[in-house]
Formats: sequence, structure tokens, C-alpha cells
Amino acid sequence: MAILQPLVDLAAICYAQGVRHVVVSPGSRSAALTLAFTRFGRFTIHVCMDERSAGFIGLGIAQQTGVPVVLICTSGSAVYNFAPAVSEAFFQHIPLLVISADRPKEWLHQYDGQTIYQNEIFGKHIKRSFEFSADYGHADVKWAINRMSNEAVTLTSTVPMGPVHINVPIREPFYPALGEEMLPSADLKIIKRQPAEMILAPEVWNALLDEFEEYPKILIAAGQNMPDHKLSEVLNKISEEWDIPVLADSIGNVSGVSIIRNHDLFLSSKNAEDLVPDLLITFGLSFISKDFKQFIRKNPPKAHWHIGEDAFLADPTQSLTRTIPVSPDYFFKNLYEKIDYQLFIQNSDPETDSSFLRKWSAKDLMSAQIKRDYCNNLPKLSDLTSLDSMFKYIDRVFQLHVANSMSVRYINLLDLGSNVRSVFCNRGTSGIDGCVSTAIGAALVNEEETLLVVGDVAFMYDRNGLLINTLLQNLKIVVINNAGGNIFRMIDGPSGLPEIETYFETRHAFSARRTCEDSNIAYFSCKEFEALEHSVKAFLENKGIALLEIFTDPYENETVWKELRKLGREQ
Amino acid sequence: MAILQPLVDLAAICYAQGVRHVVVSPGSRSAALTLAFTRFGRFTIHVCMDERSAGFIGLGIAQQTGVPVVLICTSGSAVYNFAPAVSEAFFQHIPLLVISADRPKEWLHQYDGQTIYQNEIFGKHIKRSFEFSADYGHADVKWAINRMSNEAVTLTSTVPMGPVHINVPIREPFYPALGEEMLPSADLKIIKRQPAEMILAPEVWNALLDEFEEYPKILIAAGQNMPDHKLSEVLNKISEEWDIPVLADSIGNVSGVSIIRNHDLFLSSKNAEDLVPDLLITFGLSFISKDFKQFIRKNPPKAHWHIGEDAFLADPTQSLTRTIPVSPDYFFKNLYEKIDYQLFIQNSDPETDSSFLRKWSAKDLMSAQIKRDYCNNLPKLSDLTSLDSMFKYIDRVFQLHVANSMSVRYINLLDLGSNVRSVFCNRGTSGIDGCVSTAIGAALVNEEETLLVVGDVAFMYDRNGLLINTLLQNLKIVVINNAGGNIFRMIDGPSGLPEIETYFETRHAFSARRTCEDSNIAYFSCKEFEALEHSVKAFLENKGIALLEIFTDPYENETVWKELRKLGREQ
Repeated sequence: MAILQPLVDLAAICYAQGVRHVVVSPGSRSAALTLAFTRFGRFTIHVCMDERSAGFIGLGIAQQTGVPVVLICTSGSAVYNFAPAVSEAFFQHIPLLVISADRPKEWLHQYDGQTIYQNEIFGKHIKRSFEFSADYGHADVKWAINRMSNEAVTLTSTVPMGPVHINVPIREPFYPALGEEMLPSADLKIIKRQPAEMILAPEVWNALLDEFEEYPKILIAAGQNMPDHKLSEVLNKISEEWDIPVLADSIGNVSGVSIIRNHDLFLSSKNAEDLVPDLLITFGLSFISKDFKQFIRKNPPKAHWHIGEDAFLADPTQSLTRTIPVSPDYFFKNLYEKIDYQLFIQNSDPETDSSFLRKWSAKDLMSAQIKRDYCNNLPKLSDLTSLDSMFKYIDRVFQLHVANSMSVRYINLLDLGSNVRSVFCNRGTSGIDGCVSTAIGAALVNEEETLLVVGDVAFMYDRNGLLINTLLQNLKIVVINNAGGNIFRMIDGPSGLPEIETYFETRHAFSARRTCEDSNIAYFSCKEFEALEHSVKAFLENKGIALLEIFTDPYENETVWKELRKLGREQ
Repeated sequence: MAILQPLVDLAAICYAQGVRHVVVSPGSRSAALTLAFTRFGRFTIHVCMDERSAGFIGLGIAQQTGVPVVLICTSGSAVYNFAPAVSEAFFQHIPLLVISADRPKEWLHQYDGQTIYQNEIFGKHIKRSFEFSADYGHADVKWAINRMSNEAVTLTSTVPMGPVHINVPIREPFYPALGEEMLPSADLKIIKRQPAEMILAPEVWNALLDEFEEYPKILIAAGQNMPDHKLSEVLNKISEEWDIPVLADSIGNVSGVSIIRNHDLFLSSKNAEDLVPDLLITFGLSFISKDFKQFIRKNPPKAHWHIGEDAFLADPTQSLTRTIPVSPDYFFKNLYEKIDYQLFIQNSDPETDSSFLRKWSAKDLMSAQIKRDYCNNLPKLSDLTSLDSMFKYIDRVFQLHVANSMSVRYINLLDLGSNVRSVFCNRGTSGIDGCVSTAIGAALVNEEETLLVVGDVAFMYDRNGLLINTLLQNLKIVVINNAGGNIFRMIDGPSGLPEIETYFETRHAFSARRTCEDSNIAYFSCKEFEALEHSVKAFLENKGIALLEIFTDPYENETVWKELRKLGREQ
């Protein structure tokens, strides 16, 4: 057996278990890993020198494909630079397999280069951490490495999916000899894990249905979730046929005309008590809408079921009464099929029941109108009007990626139009540290065009993702440049502080232009309201990778945002 | 007591314990911390939006001042972005106090924004992790927070110095009311820690001196160490008066004419057996010179003492026989004073003894000559010739910062001249992730000019340090742009691989020019040998912050580096 055989086999196991994309950050100690994966010949390899961005590029790919992506890095602090992406993957349930090269353990804390405590380095932000032995002599070691390889990659995609780490101490010599073949072992053992599904027994269903039918006012609410056409379909049917409002944040990715989307505008209104449900059913991960969470916290429903296969108990609305650990798809499909619609209607009070959806819909429509009127009558360049006209002019299908901080708040408020089919944002940790790279990763595997909306701070923070070896042409980036962290002006608290510009917004004069030139990205900019339509259209018509930077005024943005929020509250 | 009083007091305690510099990355949850430190009014505050770079800026300041620097960030993955700097500070013994804002612990893993497992997040790369209670009601909590504040900041600078983390969960409301005063408690308790020093008892000294005098061939070798004028002085005396060679890597910062500096060129020579010591005395942290480590590993001395106040036992040359946990300053000063020079000379064999230094010096001088001849007769633009002429033309005092990877290897081989008074490189973890920011941090507190030598990859990786709110004018940066990670061509192993350019060097066409324009840095470049002298001089004469980018050919660099190494080996 060649000295590096277990690493060659690791690559083959990853392929057999479904991995297709590998993100490599260069290094010497990791050479054998890099070569094992690249020489395997069937992976798509992406190279990014900055591990922080590389991690998020991998996350973007895995988020879209639902299949684990392998990240490879060398030993030392390189590994730590993956940590932001690993923690995001952990909380957002994205399958990543981090494979870090390490020095042999004898060199730990010996003043020797690039040697840190890599084993279990991601603490609690990892599904599990494995470490290979550096010495493959003993038969049990070989067996264990094969077993761990199979387990690690499989574990990334068992529900809830997430990141797994294999730390690989490698002894010298770790470069193959010239012409040395790197072929998987002939008797390579692949241990498959059979897909299995959580379901509810008939008697459990009966009890749930009995409870369900007791409540006249039912609200379904979607947190962050992957687009799922069938799920959307059944939710729209439930809403339309049973008069149940279904509320979804933009990142809930529930499509359909019946869905409540403007809750961020009306849930802080004083006249919202009528909207309190008896039974709240939630699914998905986090909610963007702080108003929704606070509305439920203040007005706890009689019952709150959360649908999802998490092992832990998360209750951001402080109202949970039951967790139902099955997939939303399974749950709502079965709910729809099992409920006796006639019975349901008869048992409930039709007056109250139908009016509950009507109340939600009325608020939703009114808010949509308020928003539309407000945006249409706002002849000023601001973050909000810029994005509003962007979505007005979009004439083909886009997948939307949104940075954290203000971008995602704007997006959750605006009409995105029917050409935006899905919305992604790193709401696992809600950091600004990987927004650009995640969109780059998505664009690498998306057939549709990918649009990123990002503020100036988040853009600069993660611009090193643009150093990837191949940037695809299907990416469009809109940078809303309000010269700093404008969010601090929007949220309560900091806006009145004398320190706001210096220590919170951190005003700057940076632009994305030169970064675009560095990476051969077509650059468009807009500084005046009159030019907005033209700029947006020119940008959208560009055939390749392009960036539109819209310079807005932080004070104007503050006024616009607060006025619109006020209009919503006062309805 | 105002609600945020313990945080206001934390700032006051940090000041009373010596902290003078604070690096702030903006955030909302951290607002109270930011305000407590900025409103205290006596700290110098630096602002950098990218926590990864902010961490290294703080490290650069702390490295120069020897006094703890406070880093402030908000909750979530922001904290993780400090990890590369924290691990570097841990292994390089640099006092950093990381203060991270956190959400109240109830919100952990609740799909709520910016909440990750922050407590003990730095794993083993931290001296200690503290966490405040979010509720200050109980008297014991108040006492504990005060005690922890005192302990945390003091602990950063007890030997061995290093990073300490305080995680601070903060409840709403966390913004002070308009006009609310933020004054330290009138009865604020400061617990001082008395400086104390490790010394050796007379009988311990006697035993050591007896052993010392037994060995005719003694070698002293300096790993990474802070510049210390007195220590250099006594080491030069020991070398000159006792015929003991003192070898120092560039980052050993031992000044003086008697010091052996060219060991990287001659220790892999076949004729080096004469140089094997009976007693090796080392001090400082890591050695850059791989040849030195391998020379000692292959030729273990009869005894090897390591001088330094580490709690752990590091033995990179695999030859340790004794650790002496006192400061090098104390040890060598006392050694020099206590040894009866006459006795020492009489007891040893003058022939052997003096010839041992002569052998080392002869090799050192010969290597210096080989190097000088080689560089002088090399009319080609290469990394080596570029840096060589840089140091030739330096006409005023500079502090030198060097990036990891090839930069530090070149620097360890070249004559830096007498105007380079000290050399710094992040050899704790040897990562490329913070080289630019560390130099920026140093420039912020250095009165002398700061020169950074960095490769293109390390420069791009950490360019976000240039986003700091104030870049001082006393920084000069030399980017050696060889279009990728040229080191992979230099080291054994990857240079022959067909994959070298794609997956190791990661060839690119990026330049530092536009990044300079973004930050108003005067930009100079050089692409031809004939223009080198002019470019270097123009760059050095520039009065403000400036960057010189020298474009070299990776193949040429490989030839030059390998030829010089070969000349060294063959002497």
C-alpha cells in the first residue's frame, strides 16, 4: 500500500457517498489531500486562497445542491479561518465536510510551524470531529480510517444536516513520487447508509388531528427553508381551502399567491390583536421578522407546534407546546390528506374561521398597497427605492442572495416579483462575513442567474471570495453603498448617539469599483435618482458577471426606512 | 447603579491595569462595551470593520507595547473571526484581552440572530476564558464580575503572556439613555498583581555552573525574541570574551557584530560536523531556520538547556535535557557575572574552545561572502535581488515586519543592514492570515518607520486591515508579487508536480495597485531589473504611506533560490 493510500481512499469514499464539489485552499501539508481529490478526476475542484471565503464558497455550493461539499486546507490557523463558515453551516444545517491537514501530533506546541490544536477545533459548532492516526501500520488503524471516512461524509447529510470535521495528521514524505499512481484500493469498502424517514403512527396522527380541529384560528408560519415546490403547493391549498393564513419570510421560500408576506409592516400595528392564532404551526429555521417573533411572544397562542427534524428544542417565539420531528413536506401533505375537510369546516365556526384568514389577508393587502404607494411616490435615491426598482425591472428568473444586516431586512419588506424564485441568506449565525462567497458558491452550481444584494460593509468584508480561480458569468451583484454600517442608524438605540458615525457606522469612502476591475467584473454605478432606471436596466442587460453600486445617503435612508415602518405601524 | 455599570467599570479596570489601546469592530450587541471604552476618554481607539484584521491589528500593537490590548466585537461569528489572531497571540505569547458581546444565554441555539456558542470558543488557544453573568442583581455577581475583570486583564500579561477572553452576555436595553453618564463606580475595586520574577537559588546556580564549565563546545541560539538591548549586550560579551558562538535567527532580534546570522546557508553543508556543540543553550520561541533544527536533531549535543518561563516543555530540536524557567535576560546576565572567567578559560581546552567559535565564525563569514557575491553578480529581477537591494538602499531606521511563507525565509538569509533594528513575523502559528494587519498595528504605536515585506498571496489575504479608520503615514509596504504562492516551487515535493500552478501556486494576475488607490497609499511598481534601484529609492524617499510592488518571475525565483542554497550547501 502506498504511504498515502488512506487519503486516496478517503477521496474515493467521498465520491461514492455523493460528494461532487471540492474547495481547495493551497498548502503544503495538505498536498496529499489536494492530490488525492484532484487526481481522482471526477470532482469539480474550486480553488480559493483565503480559507474564510473558501469555506463560504463551499457552503454556497452545498446549500444549493444539498450534497456535502469537501473543504480542504493545510495545517495551522488556516483551519480556524473556516470557523465562520462552519458555524453558519452548523446552525443552517448545511452539509460540509472539512478535511484539514495537520502535522503529526508529536509536534503540537513545540514551536514548530503551523501547528495548532486542530482536533475538535470547532468546539460545539460541528456535528462531530474525527481525527485519523498518522500511522497506518496497524490493521485496526486502517479499518478505523475507512470507517471514519464513511461515517464522516455520511453524517454531514443525515438530518439535521451539518458540518463534520476530519483532522488528518500527515507524516513526511507527503508528496507522491513523480509518476506515482494514486488509485483507490481495489477492495475499498464503502458503507452506505440507507435513507430513512421519520413518520407519525396513525394514533399519533389521530391525536394531532383532534387537537387541530379544536382551534378555530390557525396560523402557519415558515422560517428559513429550502424552496420546495410540493410543500408550497400543499400550503397554498391548505390556506385557500381551509382559510388558514400561511405567513412566510422571504427566506421561507414558500411560493404562491395566498401567502402572507408583508407581516413585517403590520405586525407591530396597534390593531393586530385580531391576528392572534389559537394554534400556531411553524416550520423551518430562523425568522427574519423580529416583529413576528415579538408579536407571538406578546400574544402566545393556546398551542404552538413546530415541525422539523431537529434534535434540539428551539423556541424563538417562546410559545412552543409541541415539537413534531418529521419533515414539513411529510407533515403538511399528510395533514391535508388526513383531515376531513367537511368535518373540519362543520366543527369550526365558519364566521370566525374564514374571517381569520380575511383579517390577515386584509392587513397583508393593505400593507402591500401602502408600500407600493410609498415607493412609487418617493422620487429619491435611497436603499429602499433602489432595491424596489431593481425588482421592478427584473425580467428573467434569478436566484436571490442577500447579505445580513440591512439588506435582508429590505428584502423581507419588498415585493420581489415572480422572477425571484428563491431567496437565501446566512441566517444561521446572521454574520456578514460570508455573504459574497456564499453567492459565488451558489452561482458555481446554479443554472439560473444568481443575484446578490449586499451592503458596502458586507461586500468589503468578504471580497476575497472574488479571488477564486474561476468566477462564473451568471452572477450579478448589487452593492448598496451607504458609506458604512447604515443599520446602526435604523435600529433603536444607536441612532441618537454622538458616537454613531465613528464607532458604529464607521463612515468610509470605499467603493467596489477597483475590486471589480481587479476581478474583471463589469462595473456599473448610480449616484442619482434620475439615473436609477437606466443604471439598473443597463446592469441587468449585461450578459456576464456584473456589479451595480448604488450610492445612497445614510440620512435619507434612515428617513425613508422609518417613515415606511411608521406607515405600517399606523395602519 | 446604571444597568451597564459593570461594563463601564470593566473599561476603568482595564485602564487602571495598564491597557491603553482598544480595537473596536462595530456591532449593536457590543454597543455598551464600545461606549464604555470610548467614553472613558483615555484610551486610543482603533476601528476596523473586519474582525480578522482587527484581531491582528490589536496583536501588532500589543507585540510592540508589551501591554495588553483590548479587542471588542459583537456577538455571533464576529468572535470566530478573531480566532486566527488569538491563536497567534497564544503561541507567540502576546497579551490580548478579547471582550465579546453575547446575547443572554437563554437565546443560545434558538434560531435567533447572531447567537453561537461563544463561551470558551477559542478552545485550547486561550490562557483562560471568562463569562460574565447577564444579570447583575446579586451581590456575588457584582463581586465576581469585578474580580474576573481584574483577573482577566492581569492574566494576559503574566508570564507567559497571551490572550484571555471575556464573554459578556448583555440584556436589552443595552444602549444608554441620551445624556446618560457612563462613569466608573466611585468605589471601584482595582486588584493589582505585584510583578514578581523567577530566579535561581545559589545552589542551583552552582550546579549549573559546574555543568557549564564541563563543556568545551558551547553554542547559544536565539529563537523568536523581542529586541532587548541589555540581553544583546551580554550575549555579545559572552561570545567575544568566552569564545562561544551565539546564533540568532532574524526574529531573534539579537544585535551586535559577533552574532552568527548565516546559519541558514551553511548548516546543511556536508562539512558541518565540527560545529556540533557539547552544550546547546537556547532561548526565545520558534526558530525560522529549518536547517538549524535539523542540524541539531541529527547531531544532538550532550546537553541542551532551554531558558524561558514557559509552563510547558517544547523541544523542536529533540535534544532538550534541562529547562531553566527564568527570563533570558536574568539568566545570561547572571551567567556572565557568576562565571569565574579565569577559571573557565583554565578549565577548558583553549585550543578546542577558541577554535569552536572560530569554526562557526569562519563559516558565517564565508557564507556572508558567498551570498554577497551571488547577489552582486545577479543582474536579474528576482525576489532575492529585490529584497537585497531594498536593504542596501535603506538609509534610516526601520522596524521590519515580514510575512510568513517565502518572505521570512528570504529575510532570514539576507543582510538587513544596521538600519533594521528589529524584525517581527507571526511565527506563533506561521499563518499568512494577519501579516498586513500586524504591521499596521505596529505602525500605529511605533515612532520609527515600519516596513512590511509581504508576498502577493499574504497581501491579498489580509488587505482588509487597510480598512482601518486611520492608517498612519509611517508604514511602507513591499509586495513581492510572483503571481501566486511561489513557496511551493521552492520546497521539496510540490515543485515537480503537474498540479503545481493550479492547486498550489494558484497563479493569478492580481496586483496591489487598486487596493492602494482605495486606501490612498502611494503606489510604486517595478517590473524590470534596470528600474529596481530607481523604484526602491523613489519608494523609500516617499514621505508618507507607500507601497512598492515588485513583479518577479516564479521560475527565475526558483532558480535563484535553489542556486544560492546549493552554493551554501557546497561550501
